[in-house]
Amino acid sequence: MDRLIGVDVGGTRTRVGAVYAGRILARRAFPTRGLAEVKAAIKEVLLEAGWKKPDAIGVGAPAPMDMRRGVILNAPNLPHWNGANVAEELQDAFDCPVFLGNDANCAAVGELVYGWRAQDFLYVTWSTGIGGGIVAGGQVVWGATGQAGEIGHITLRPDGPHCRCGKRGCLEAFAGGAGLSDRSLEHFGQRFSAEELVERAKKGETGALSLVDDACFFMGQALAIVAELLEPEMVIFGGGLTNSWDFLGPKVIAALHSMSRIRPRVELTKLGDDVGLLGAATLPFHFPKL
Amino acid sequence: MDRLIGVDVGGTRTRVGAVYAGRILARRAFPTRGLAEVKAAIKEVLLEAGWKKPDAIGVGAPAPMDMRRGVILNAPNLPHWNGANVAEELQDAFDCPVFLGNDANCAAVGELVYGWRAQDFLYVTWSTGIGGGIVAGGQVVWGATGQAGEIGHITLRPDGPHCRCGKRGCLEAFAGGAGLSDRSLEHFGQRFSAEELVERAKKGETGALSLVDDACFFMGQALAIVAELLEPEMVIFGGGLTNSWDFLGPKVIAALHSMSRIRPRVELTKLGDDVGLLGAATLPFHFPKL
Repeated sequence: MDRLIGVDVGGTRTRVGAVYAGRILARRAFPTRGLAEVKAAIKEVLLEAGWKKPDAIGVGAPAPMDMRRGVILNAPNLPHWNGANVAEELQDAFDCPVFLGNDANCAAVGELVYGWRAQDFLYVTWSTGIGGGIVAGGQVVWGATGQAGEIGHITLRPDGPHCRCGKRGCLEAFAGGAGLSDRSLEHFGQRFSAEELVERAKKGETGALSLVDDACFFMGQALAIVAELLEPEMVIFGGGLTNSWDFLGPKVIAALHSMSRIRPRVELTKLGDDVGLLGAATLPFHFPKL
Repeated sequence: MDRLIGVDVGGTRTRVGAVYAGRILARRAFPTRGLAEVKAAIKEVLLEAGWKKPDAIGVGAPAPMDMRRGVILNAPNLPHWNGANVAEELQDAFDCPVFLGNDANCAAVGELVYGWRAQDFLYVTWSTGIGGGIVAGGQVVWGATGQAGEIGHITLRPDGPHCRCGKRGCLEAFAGGAGLSDRSLEHFGQRFSAEELVERAKKGETGALSLVDDACFFMGQALAIVAELLEPEMVIFGGGLTNSWDFLGPKVIAALHSMSRIRPRVELTKLGDDVGLLGAATLPFHFPKL
């Protein structure tokens, strides 16, 4: 099991890589569509790496899934992947075992194997949505059927704003990029992107600052809850909103410290945009017994 | 490692047992004092079981501790155990390895080995305080230094009532026996015990019912948070307040279901008052690498 293919299906971009001994020998990145485009990219990186076939393929995706069967269930944000039988189709095409996992859990595997290599940590993707992956005692926490890690959907305010998941007051509704944007529409009658809101907050615009401060406070509360529950040594962040980490990070950490007696070190991923791809490639070695 | 001694140091009672193949061959229970009383009880159960010496001793206690050294740190609720060097003193007295762990984590070990035997679950002690122990993928989640599981001290309302831990709005401040009693003093100018409040709530007294309903709601919110984070198959309850489970349980479960997409089965411990003792006896096999 040396010649590994990692596939990181993102909400907007998909990354495919041929990974050998932790190095990405060949890679493709392209706007997310469906399985056909992924198959074509795998063929290209196999050719470029000089491999006849891979030893295993790992796929990470931000969607509800049946890990045991390797099937994506309903995927409102990934229309081309709705119901896709990922494991069977890629197995048939490349004649090797295929493993499918949640994208944030894959990123946690990437951090465990190639990144900070902590043994007890929480990985958080802070982007349009908020995903999470948990490692405890050097093992990924998958949960009973592989759905663990959903820090974006813990209820912080039962009477809070509606979340895309159907519940109210989830962390994601306050602090996810889409949630922040929704809240700007509610508060200002005008929709701003999360990036715009952060820029306006940096300039000291009171309304934007208040929404961004709220987002950071709730993120800190969520980390504090995880700290008391799991005593991680680190919290590791990735995702688009961390581009503004210099501005957001200190607010998040201050909130964390105000609500937890346990104070894990908080850092950005060491692997940048490759964290999901490298983690997916290593998923075969960390796949749960389900 | 067959002849095991389990010691469950509780806030009010201490239980000591000689455990062989999951059976308690001899036991003592007495009001909690210090290490001298525990040593005497161990000698008695050894004699009764017909053992010259134990193969290992496991001790669970509700106090901050250094698991690596087997030392209890500050223990405001257990004055006789303040700073006790448990591992060294019992090793010297009984010439065998000694393991010290948090009481709720020990109870989780008990459930894992002798109780419901789920592989992914949360154990909750609902009593004067609220403790927790987490098992994920068949492994106890100890955290970086053995302090994981503190569900009683997750912040649910950052502006909520003061908690004994120094923070505000912890689950324990709303739903722990002592917290409930404190809140009765605030609300009625008269202190009731948690048991009295539950009895009054059962009779339909509006004020008491409101406090008890709040307690159950926050307990349900905490379980919902753990469900989204860890996808446990079960939540298992023990502790004094579960004597009123017929009244409290349905309220807790309704709140859990209203705030989580994942709905673990919720049950009482199968091991009754022995859960902590049996878990402590098995702690040697589940002790973390720290």
